Amino acid sequence: MGLQQGLTSTADPERMLADLRALAELTGNERGAQRVAWTDTWAKAREWESGLLAELPVSVDVDEAGNQWATLEGESPQTLIIGSHIDSVPDGGWLDGCLGVLSALEVLRGLARNGRPPLTVKLIDWADEEGARFGLSLLGSTMTTSGLEPDYVRALRDVGGMTAGEALAAHGVEVERMAQARSRLDQAVAYIELHIEQGPVLEARDLPLGVVRGCYGTERWEVRFAGQAAHSGSTPMDQRRDSLLAAARVALEVRELARRLGGVGTTGRISSEPGIPTAVAGVSTLLVDQRHEDPEVLGELHEQAVQASRRIAAEEDVEVSWSPLFRIAPIPFDPSLIESAAAIVNDIQGTDVRLPSGPLHDAARVAEFGVPTVMLFVRSKRGLSHTKEEDTDEADLALALNALDRLVHERLAQGTRS
Amino acid sequence: MGLQQGLTSTADPERMLADLRALAELTGNERGAQRVAWTDTWAKAREWESGLLAELPVSVDVDEAGNQWATLEGESPQTLIIGSHIDSVPDGGWLDGCLGVLSALEVLRGLARNGRPPLTVKLIDWADEEGARFGLSLLGSTMTTSGLEPDYVRALRDVGGMTAGEALAAHGVEVERMAQARSRLDQAVAYIELHIEQGPVLEARDLPLGVVRGCYGTERWEVRFAGQAAHSGSTPMDQRRDSLLAAARVALEVRELARRLGGVGTTGRISSEPGIPTAVAGVSTLLVDQRHEDPEVLGELHEQAVQASRRIAAEEDVEVSWSPLFRIAPIPFDPSLIESAAAIVNDIQGTDVRLPSGPLHDAARVAEFGVPTVMLFVRSKRGLSHTKEEDTDEADLALALNALDRLVHERLAQGTRS
Repeated sequence: MGLQQGLTSTADPERMLADLRALAELTGNERGAQRVAWTDTWAKAREWESGLLAELPVSVDVDEAGNQWATLEGESPQTLIIGSHIDSVPDGGWLDGCLGVLSALEVLRGLARNGRPPLTVKLIDWADEEGARFGLSLLGSTMTTSGLEPDYVRALRDVGGMTAGEALAAHGVEVERMAQARSRLDQAVAYIELHIEQGPVLEARDLPLGVVRGCYGTERWEVRFAGQAAHSGSTPMDQRRDSLLAAARVALEVRELARRLGGVGTTGRISSEPGIPTAVAGVSTLLVDQRHEDPEVLGELHEQAVQASRRIAAEEDVEVSWSPLFRIAPIPFDPSLIESAAAIVNDIQGTDVRLPSGPLHDAARVAEFGVPTVMLFVRSKRGLSHTKEEDTDEADLALALNALDRLVHERLAQGTRS
Repeated sequence: MGLQQGLTSTADPERMLADLRALAELTGNERGAQRVAWTDTWAKAREWESGLLAELPVSVDVDEAGNQWATLEGESPQTLIIGSHIDSVPDGGWLDGCLGVLSALEVLRGLARNGRPPLTVKLIDWADEEGARFGLSLLGSTMTTSGLEPDYVRALRDVGGMTAGEALAAHGVEVERMAQARSRLDQAVAYIELHIEQGPVLEARDLPLGVVRGCYGTERWEVRFAGQAAHSGSTPMDQRRDSLLAAARVALEVRELARRLGGVGTTGRISSEPGIPTAVAGVSTLLVDQRHEDPEVLGELHEQAVQASRRIAAEEDVEVSWSPLFRIAPIPFDPSLIESAAAIVNDIQGTDVRLPSGPLHDAARVAEFGVPTVMLFVRSKRGLSHTKEEDTDEADLALALNALDRLVHERLAQGTRS
């Protein structure tokens, strides 16, 4: 076979870069990428993508959840899935999502030239990863795996008041049938996704590539402190029950916990009522987001934050209550695929970086569903994403394509799983 | 004369309480007092007040600034002014402002029975103390003393879009002529105002009455921190430039400074952008309000807050800038009037409490203008004001009327000033 031994790759980075630029030209403007899912621009991107796939010996179709598949039949029906999502946020960057699709396309081009691979290889373009229009990120991959109540999804509205039910139907997707896409994963034995890091870790370590160990779990809560609104001028300091200062102390504690236990902890907002300079804040609300890749440590981060908030509430003579906003367990990726990816990354850059993903990705849904999964990250400049300033050096993109190609070939060489 | 020696008072607390209740009935509803200045309800209150004054040997008129005066001619044209304001906030309490007017009216009734007093005595009902409709508090007293640009005042709009120029004209006030009211103070030798405390100090000390030393000066600033917005999940703790945490630290520092140097210090709001749980806050803004009665200490409070914010900004790797919102120097009241009032309060309740006023009052404008001024405070239940829950025990109100009456008689007995 020899595929797994090759240090060189048949994938052509120049062609991938040309594709990325062509897509940006076709579906972006001076404010950035505009491929919001369930819009004409997104459909145009899909059509362009289908045109490129039509040059290959693959069959292309869209499943019930709106995900677009390209299938290169292999010796076995067992399937290796590669890809990402071509949709973008409004005013998005030139790499988020589409890098994973167009690098997979370039890998597929190389594979297609060499006849039937040992496994069937499918390129996936997940529908609506960003959730930019209806607020539900990972929509296509979620409906394909764990699922959501169709009635709930159908009734969501965009800012113009159109329902998700109407918008999806205009693109041929019936919400109540989306879960039928699940059968597409029946033969899946591996899922590999390349994505930009969207964070500053690789840049800080001066390395182009990293292997993703899994996705952080998240504890996202609203914390409400109720004290007593009072006049800023007439209320002495020792007679105040200031909810804002309790909130400020908890925000600082959330940081200290992440520094001590690892992971990340963020207070993105403190809202106060009445929220004017002439009044002590009677009620203040924090939005707290804590993440870690170890479920036990994640639980500890949350529990210690709750305890700290109770201690602080007692000291400040205010009431505290916690309400959940979003909770998800950590999702580890496949150990064997992580080892394979790490060996290739080490070979390319002389050192092996393994990092968790803070943001969720479609890969998390696939892994959670039980398909062995791994992701490769390529360095983001200044950690920026979801903005037209998002960027990665072309040399890094070439290395990333090389790593993806070699990882796909190695997994194909490993053959079927019983 | 004997007036200054009397421990008893000719003022009748029952009649004052009946007046307060009648006014509440006439101009309030189930949500509280509705005497917003420059409205029909406010005009109705003024008309009712004029009706009560018509029973006395006083002349009643309204000056160019909309303030209503009742004049009891005395032996000397030198004038002792007593009063407060009959306007209220929307959904206001039954005492704020009108207690000062109706207690002064009751004092005036007693004086009028005894022939010509040594000094002329005027009851003042200041126009628009609350600034509830156009956002400018102390409007009548300010235009009568330090003044404001007429063009600025005239162009202010209420929530319905009507200009102050139109609204005041409907009540016979031309903005450009308001400053002419200044001549009303030409003969003023003393100004005495009774007001509810609107704070918790007297209640905490279990005492009904206090003498106001003066009004706090205020340093009110907007403090802006600029860090770097970043993804809550993908940005490690040691690579963040979190503006919200810098703001939280400064809010706590503002409290520490007031605890250490005295006065009060309040952060009423922290606003953050983008203000979502999935992003480190790139920009955060605090509203900081610091008050003290000593100009040097007030300056120190502000200066040390600025220094702390710079130190914290450096530590958090964010930028900080300060923009002024409202600044006013402390306004001390008249030492001789303070001593007289303190002696009377001590006689009534066995101890002498002197406290600064956190909120501004019309008395501050009068004192600033150069008229010897003092205020009496009567205890507020739970420190509440600007709500229909505002309350003071009737027994306390009776003591307050007694103190005001005796203070007026004592000042009259002191006679003219050269």
